[in-house]
Order: sequence, then C-alpha cells, then structure tokens
Amino acid sequence: MTDRQIKLGFILHGVGRTWNDWRHPDRDVNASTSLAHYQKQAAIAERGKFDFLFVADSLSITEKSSPHYLNRFEPITILSALAATTSRIGLVATLTVSYSEPFNVARQFASLDHLSGGRAGWNVVTSWLGDTAANFSKAEHPAHDLRYRIAGEYLDVVQGLWDSWEADAHVADKNSGQFVNPEKLHRLNHRGEFFQVRGPLNIKRTPQGQPVIFQAGASDDGRNFAARRAEVIFTHAPTLEEGQAYLADVKARAKGVGRNPDKLFILPGIAPIIGDTDEDAEGRYHELAALESIDTGLGFLSRTFNDHDFRQYDLDGPFPDVEHIGINSQQSSTLRILAEVRADNLSLRQVAERLATPRGAFVGSAETVANRLQQWFEAGAADGFVIFEPLPGQLDLFVDQVIPILQARGIFRRNYEGTTFREQLGLDVPDNRYSTADARRTVA
Amino acid sequence: MTDRQIKLGFILHGVGRTWNDWRHPDRDVNASTSLAHYQKQAAIAERGKFDFLFVADSLSITEKSSPHYLNRFEPITILSALAATTSRIGLVATLTVSYSEPFNVARQFASLDHLSGGRAGWNVVTSWLGDTAANFSKAEHPAHDLRYRIAGEYLDVVQGLWDSWEADAHVADKNSGQFVNPEKLHRLNHRGEFFQVRGPLNIKRTPQGQPVIFQAGASDDGRNFAARRAEVIFTHAPTLEEGQAYLADVKARAKGVGRNPDKLFILPGIAPIIGDTDEDAEGRYHELAALESIDTGLGFLSRTFNDHDFRQYDLDGPFPDVEHIGINSQQSSTLRILAEVRADNLSLRQVAERLATPRGAFVGSAETVANRLQQWFEAGAADGFVIFEPLPGQLDLFVDQVIPILQARGIFRRNYEGTTFREQLGLDVPDNRYSTADARRTVA
Repeated sequence: MTDRQIKLGFILHGVGRTWNDWRHPDRDVNASTSLAHYQKQAAIAERGKFDFLFVADSLSITEKSSPHYLNRFEPITILSALAATTSRIGLVATLTVSYSEPFNVARQFASLDHLSGGRAGWNVVTSWLGDTAANFSKAEHPAHDLRYRIAGEYLDVVQGLWDSWEADAHVADKNSGQFVNPEKLHRLNHRGEFFQVRGPLNIKRTPQGQPVIFQAGASDDGRNFAARRAEVIFTHAPTLEEGQAYLADVKARAKGVGRNPDKLFILPGIAPIIGDTDEDAEGRYHELAALESIDTGLGFLSRTFNDHDFRQYDLDGPFPDVEHIGINSQQSSTLRILAEVRADNLSLRQVAERLATPRGAFVGSAETVANRLQQWFEAGAADGFVIFEPLPGQLDLFVDQVIPILQARGIFRRNYEGTTFREQLGLDVPDNRYSTADARRTVA
Repeated sequence: MTDRQIKLGFILHGVGRTWNDWRHPDRDVNASTSLAHYQKQAAIAERGKFDFLFVADSLSITEKSSPHYLNRFEPITILSALAATTSRIGLVATLTVSYSEPFNVARQFASLDHLSGGRAGWNVVTSWLGDTAANFSKAEHPAHDLRYRIAGEYLDVVQGLWDSWEADAHVADKNSGQFVNPEKLHRLNHRGEFFQVRGPLNIKRTPQGQPVIFQAGASDDGRNFAARRAEVIFTHAPTLEEGQAYLADVKARAKGVGRNPDKLFILPGIAPIIGDTDEDAEGRYHELAALESIDTGLGFLSRTFNDHDFRQYDLDGPFPDVEHIGINSQQSSTLRILAEVRADNLSLRQVAERLATPRGAFVGSAETVANRLQQWFEAGAADGFVIFEPLPGQLDLFVDQVIPILQARGIFRRNYEGTTFREQLGLDVPDNRYSTADARRTVA
C-alpha cells in the first residue's frame, strides 16, 4: 500500500449538468430543491468514504439559463442541513467574494464548521457571469485582474477573523467566573484597499482551526492565486496530458512561493459513466447524449462568446472565426474550445455536440474506470477527483463497484481517518497567527 | 374552545441571556456552539407543539461583551441544520438589512423554506450597535430614521425576488422538454434609492409562497415599519399594561394602513420560571440572580449610555442624571430604564440588579404561570409569547406542565395544523404580484 491516496469528492446536484438530462426517465425533476434527494446523495457518498461533498454555485439567471442554474439550493443552507444528517464527510460550499461581506462569510463557515464537528470547506470564487452585478446594485463587474486582488484581500480578512479566538480563549471556568480570556481574543483591525474590518469574530475558534480552502483557478491569475492560497484545487482536465500539465504548473507555482506541494491537492472534476461492460457504458453515454438537441450546444457557445448568434452558420461547415467576435471573461473554457477546434478541425456541429453532452475520459466498466483513475493518479495528472453523477444510479455504481477496486489496490483508504475534514485530508491545522510566542499580541 | 389561540415561540440559545447564567451548575458552557444542544432544545419545543423556534443575532463583539454575544451560531446555518432534524415547527432567523445583500438574503431564506418544507421566517432587523459598522468596511452606522428607509426598500426587494417564480413556473415536462415557463419567470428590475436588483431569483417559489416576516419595532419608526410590514412582532412588555398599550397602538397603526389586525401577531418575549409551588419558583429566581454581580448591571448600563462609567457613583444614592450624558441608539430600552427610574425612584444598585437578572412577570407554579399567560392573552396584552429558558430544565417544565393547562383551557391547540408555518399561524399565502390576471407581466 502506497502512502499517497486518491482524494475523492462528490458534487451534490439536483437535476443535472447538461441542458436536458433532467428529462431522463429516472431523474426527479424536483431534485434541485429536495432535501430528501440531497440527503440520499450524501448518504451514498459517505457510505463510499468520499472525502467531501461539494456544492457549486452561481448568482444570476435569465429565462435562457440551463435548468441546473435556474433553480438550486443556496450552498451554505443545504450543507448546514446535511451537517446534521452526516457524520464524517467534508462539506464544501462555493461562495463568491464579489458580492458578500467577509465578516458574514467568515461567520457562516465558522458556524458550519462547529455544526459539523470540523468538516467545513470554502470554495473561494470570483463571480464571472457578466450580468451578476445587476443583482447586487452594482453598475458593472470588476475586471478580471482586479477580482483576484479583491479575492486575496477578502481571504486575508476571513482567515484573519477565523484566528480571532485562540484555541484556549474560551475558558468558561464556572468557579472563577472567567468566560473568555481577553488576552486571547483578538481584533483583526484590518485596514486594506477594499475592506476595513475590526473584529473579533463572534464565534470561537472552530474544530478545524480554519475551514479548508478550495479554489478553481484556471487562468494565469487564477493559478497564481490557487498556488498561493488554496489547499484543494477543483479543476477541469479534459485529457490526462492537460491534467499533468496543469498539476505540474500549479505545484511548481506553489513550490515557488515556499509551499509544500504535497499539501496542495489538485482534483479534476469528472463524470464517470459506468456500465456492466465497456460497451454497456458506451450505450449509457449515448442514452444521455440523446436527451440533448443541437440548439443546446449552440446556446452554450452563444453564452461563451458574448451572446453571439451561432445559428447563422452552416452546422457542418468549419467552425466560424470567433476570435474576432469578442469573448467573455470565462477565459479558460473559451480558450479550451478554441484549442479543440484547432486540434481536431471540428465542425460547428461537433463543437456543439461536445459542449451539450461532455463525455470525458471515464466511460467503461468499473474495472476500466478504476484503471483510468489509477492511471491519471499515478501519472501525476490528479491527486484525486471530484465526481459528478451524469446519470441517475451512477453514484451507487461508483461506490459499490469502482471504490472497492481502488481500495483493493491500496490507493483509496477503507475507512475515514481522523475526526475533522482537515485531518482526513492530512492537512495540518494552521497556526493561529496570535498564538506563537513571538507574535502573541494582546487585545488592542 | 375559543377561536383565538395563543401563539408560542421558543428562543433557541446557548449559554443564556444574563452575564453569568452560564455558571449555573446544570448549564453546558459549550452550548452556544453545540448542535446537539440546539437539537435537544428544538425537539422539546416541537414536542410541546410550539409554533416556532427563534434565533436572535448580533454582529459585533468586544472583549467586554456578554458571554451569549461573544460566541454564537450564525442563525441561517443553525436553523438549516435543524430543518433536517425537525418536521413541523417554524424556523425564524434574525438577519440584518444593514450589512448584507438582498439577493443573498432572499436566496438563503427561500432555500431554508424549501429545505424545511415551508417553515422559514425572517426577523427583519436594523443593526443598532454603534460599532457594528467597523466590521463591515463602513465608516459609520446610518442614522436611525435612514435605517428604516433602507429596511423598507430592502424588504421590497427581497419580497419581490420571492415572487420571481410564479407557483406554476416550474413546468418540468419531460415530454415537451419545457423546464420553465419563461412567461412565469420574472425579472424584478428594481431601481430604488438604495438598491438596484434585476432578478429573477435562482430558486423557485417556496412552499410558503413567501417566508413569514417578523419584526421587533419599538420606537415610533419601528412601530410604523412593523405595522406596515410584519406578520409577527416580537416585542418586550415588562408589564401587562405596557403590553396592552403596545398591542393596541401597533394594531391601530396596522388598521390605519388597511391591514387586518387579526393577521398581525404580537408576541412579547418572556422568561418564565416554573417551580413546584410559587415559593419554589421564587427560590429558583433567586438561585439565578445569585449568579450575577453588581458589576454586570453596571456594565450593561455603561453599554446603554455610550460607555459612560457608572462605577464613579454611589451605588445606594439616587440614579445619576444620565439624560445629559448622551444615550446610544437602542432607544426603547434606554427610555424604559429612565421610566423605571422615575416610576419607582430606584437607586443605582436597584437598576443594576434589575438589569443583570430580569425577573419578569412569569414566576410561579405551572398553574400560576398558565394563569398569567391566559390573563395577558385575554386582556389584549399579547397574541402569544416567545419563551426564553432562563434556567436549564425550564423548557421541559413549560412543555410538560404549563402547555397542558393551556390546552385544557382551549387556548392552545393540541396538535400542529396545516403543513407550512404560515398555515400553522393561520396566515394566508401572499398573492404573487405577477399572478393576478390584471397585473400579469411577461418577462422584460
């Protein structure tokens, strides 16, 4: 058994990830706002010893949005509910730094960490959809580089507030009458470019010390931010080679800023489709793809390329020259599409199909999928994976058929280890900035 | 059995409400961040058929804050957790309009309403502590009257967003492929003095249509706001006469703006202390009061009167002339203290003791407490009560001994009625502003 172990997350979701997968006969169309559905997913994932549950997010819809964006639980609320009905699995919520107050966010994650006995994680995002600002009394969205400067300072504030209470600040001695030791309760007194926050936070230090930081940086700014600040990176890696390149690049950046790259886990999101045989799995992929129409892919293209209308082009002609049309700020996925067009000489129809129903590299029997996971893991393309369930029932198959193979091969543990999510991942509890002998400060 | 029934809420809390009640031998000093403690309280209240659980809040502490302020769960997170472990009781969270985004707040409450099957309530507050602004990158707190203008517009936005989806907008017809009917999904397009919010909200209409609105207005501005906008008012009524005066005043204001005053419930917060006999109950009050020191009351005075130092005065002399010292913005409680000083000619020590351990009007045997509740209810001093547990074990006594008396007298129902919190309270589901034939609008 090797020391290095695959990390596994599961993306909780309602109706799906493609435009029409809610039309699958086995899909509950009310899943997106059904606590029972989420509880069921969470229980299966915890039975499989997944490291964490992950909830994605977005903050703006229009009448044209995909069903899984239109109607969804707010991440903090659904994960707080699941904190009460799960016991070991990590709970990772996506929350933007663009349209919230760091004091509130620090508090909600600290509260979730206490509720769950130390299982909270925060996926730090900057909101990229161009029209999100319109829901938050803002005239326009900050530029891409500015967003990462805001994000860095925002995270400074949240992590600073999480240190407000030293671990032994809460004395609660009934005899002496001392509830808190004021010398171990700290004001942050942050005065920065974007935020001024005094503190202290009104909730004591959490079981994890600090909730685990997730990030999903893909652009150059995003990779630097993730390399400096993230403990887990949720990424997209369409191929093993892209996974290797991304992992090597980000770990090098992390090393470059003095971090131990073994304490930074890079997890591509994948949507495995498992069948009794490889052929059966292919059939299931086609069952899924048949739910989509070509318009879905064209609509996705339109969203990516500044609402440009792709219906004007010949579907089977060459992919139109869109680099001059203007692209929106979702830089990485846009660049990836252009790269695929160039590499495979794709027609517009092929691009649209590929976008409407992502197939990915993990379609096959349990053995095939396990082999591929091991291959990526051992080739340095991934430290683990964040699993999405593309068809109802696939999570059960993954847990019952794929995970036992990984366990037998010694690359996925058989039981939860440690108490908190951080311990589970093998991540140290961060030092409280006030608790080292030299740095200890008394309250201002 | 009369038609009118007492409404009962329970204030979930951790270590207590006074400075030192955490020192009681039976009090769990870790209760404030213990999910198990909150689950136990919630289960007892639901066994007693309480209408709702209520979580208070505050957003700023210093080293001098009372233990119950220093360390507490964030309300949305703890109530979301309890949504998963309770089934019938309402879940009311306090959340300020001063330091949050209406889109996020609308979403979190809608999410809680879905999670709980229609049991969410929002206690709308404006944050009054003078130093809260320092935690939210603001130089100063808005003035009292401005806060209510902001609150009114904020509530307009949140309630508008809650109407984004008409009840039948979520079509989800697998055959036709229509997930949402775009004509029943609405942009708010709010452009006001303080907020510009486009919408629609990214979660469908909730089981209650709209979560129930709570408010706690005490000042003149606060009463007008509550009379116009609240469905339940959580108030403080130290005496029956003050309760009657407040209820008559606010119901008259509600009638004055065209509302049915029977659909506005006024619930004073009380902390009953129940004993085997009246004498036993008095003993329990003294057991509680003995936990406090005179400094606690002096500290509370200092907080109320702009950090003025009251230790400089003779404890047994007349209450100092503080009207010229300057008072902070917690107008109603400040004015009440001054009124009590005048009415009872209190010494500084007496004021401090009264503040450190509020006794209230509900101390006695179960029969005595039930009689007093009935008296207040029938005299028009209250439509019900929000119960705080001043000593461990008191909630059990209230549920097992007081509630059966109220039930036997026909003034508290024996079972939950209806499915949602709104139905439970006898409040109508508000019309969706877009769903009436005349007002229906298509998407912009």
